[in-house]
Amino acid sequence: MSTHRHEAALYFREISRQCIHYLSIDYVVFGFHENQLKVLLLRWKETNAWSLPGGFIKKKEAVDEAAHRCLQERTGLKKIYLQHFDNFGDVPRYDEKKTWERIDLRISDIEWSERTISLGYLALVDYSKVKPKPDFLTAECQWFNITDIPSLLFDHNRIVDVALHALRMRLPYLPVKHLLPPMFTMPEFQKLYETILGRSLDTRNFHRKITSSGILQKLKKRKEGTPYRSPYLYKFSAIQYAKALKEGTLMFS
Amino acid sequence: MSTHRHEAALYFREISRQCIHYLSIDYVVFGFHENQLKVLLLRWKETNAWSLPGGFIKKKEAVDEAAHRCLQERTGLKKIYLQHFDNFGDVPRYDEKKTWERIDLRISDIEWSERTISLGYLALVDYSKVKPKPDFLTAECQWFNITDIPSLLFDHNRIVDVALHALRMRLPYLPVKHLLPPMFTMPEFQKLYETILGRSLDTRNFHRKITSSGILQKLKKRKEGTPYRSPYLYKFSAIQYAKALKEGTLMFS
Repeated sequence: MSTHRHEAALYFREISRQCIHYLSIDYVVFGFHENQLKVLLLRWKETNAWSLPGGFIKKKEAVDEAAHRCLQERTGLKKIYLQHFDNFGDVPRYDEKKTWERIDLRISDIEWSERTISLGYLALVDYSKVKPKPDFLTAECQWFNITDIPSLLFDHNRIVDVALHALRMRLPYLPVKHLLPPMFTMPEFQKLYETILGRSLDTRNFHRKITSSGILQKLKKRKEGTPYRSPYLYKFSAIQYAKALKEGTLMFS
Repeated sequence: MSTHRHEAALYFREISRQCIHYLSIDYVVFGFHENQLKVLLLRWKETNAWSLPGGFIKKKEAVDEAAHRCLQERTGLKKIYLQHFDNFGDVPRYDEKKTWERIDLRISDIEWSERTISLGYLALVDYSKVKPKPDFLTAECQWFNITDIPSLLFDHNRIVDVALHALRMRLPYLPVKHLLPPMFTMPEFQKLYETILGRSLDTRNFHRKITSSGILQKLKKRKEGTPYRSPYLYKFSAIQYAKALKEGTLMFS
């Protein structure tokens, strides 16, 4: 047994003692960069196998607290916008033997329950601000375009699909501002909606809808470093944006 | 200890042996009758205390399967449209001692874990078709108007609030047809949306939107037994309705 495998086994033994069996958390962390929706993935040490970040709930810990703690432990991301989106409770959810072999762990190393029901959380982060760090189980964190996700461990490809669907369904109520830096251009804002929806929107209608909603405030500043006509920068109008989210009025057909 | 209390304790002991500790399911069963959105509640035997129906997941049972099985066991409702809407995982979720006293059980009767994380499911049923039956823990099932829910056991009032919010948020994607009989009038259809949203909608706009969406098919039959001009009956056009739900286009502002 390699040193890493031995350490990982000890880690899971400790989790098994402290945490609620049968339950886990998985995260689909969304970011937005260069007009693309991206998802944060972890590569397991000494392998080429990628997965979502995940974690376990302590016996006396609120589920939402656990969700924040584990994401921080596994990726270094703190004070992130999190929202539960679905549970994954089939039996079995995936081929366990094959999966553990890909990451060089045996089920017997883990002394865990026969199955795990996963609570799926989606996270929205400002890509420009966060610096994810891998934990001791993993060798690196990397952002992948939503259109270019590799074959993941466990049932994580399915979890990504369900999260993306939830993102689309909940879009009128979703605080997408967490995906943006404090100032951005109208074309960037439109691209954000387009990359989430996976289709283009009519620019004139989009502009009109956003302007009439009052959720954005146009600044005097223009974006620097753009090749020709520099576009204006915008920021959110907190009160109008909160109202629009509460009422779910930001819909684009 | 009363016979009922003794039997209930035995029941929970058996649940404790067969089911996953720390997890439960709670149901907000919605029906629509006389222009009102209604929720199904159970009154616990030998008490005046009401709660939502609930259940527990067996160790090797898929969560969605458990959701169908338990609803049937507790209310007799089979083949119901169910959708998970949120989890309830705070510590504590409610005052346990007070709650169990209201239903004449002690925590010591139950030999259960210290806390339960509840998976919330919403159910949509055709009120005119279902005949809910109480299980052996409860004395009766009764429908309550959503605007007139009594003080419930556990944190069930909160669960009802969250379910109603989810219903509203998900309305463009929600198969509300499960709440209706096979044939219904346009005013009834509008009332269904209004009672879910908790506000009135403009009749002309509603009619125009529904007509142009093509989701309903006007029948030659009119509704009988109405005082004067009998309104036409409608039914769903399966293909168009499925398409509208998939795309989430049925929105009413």
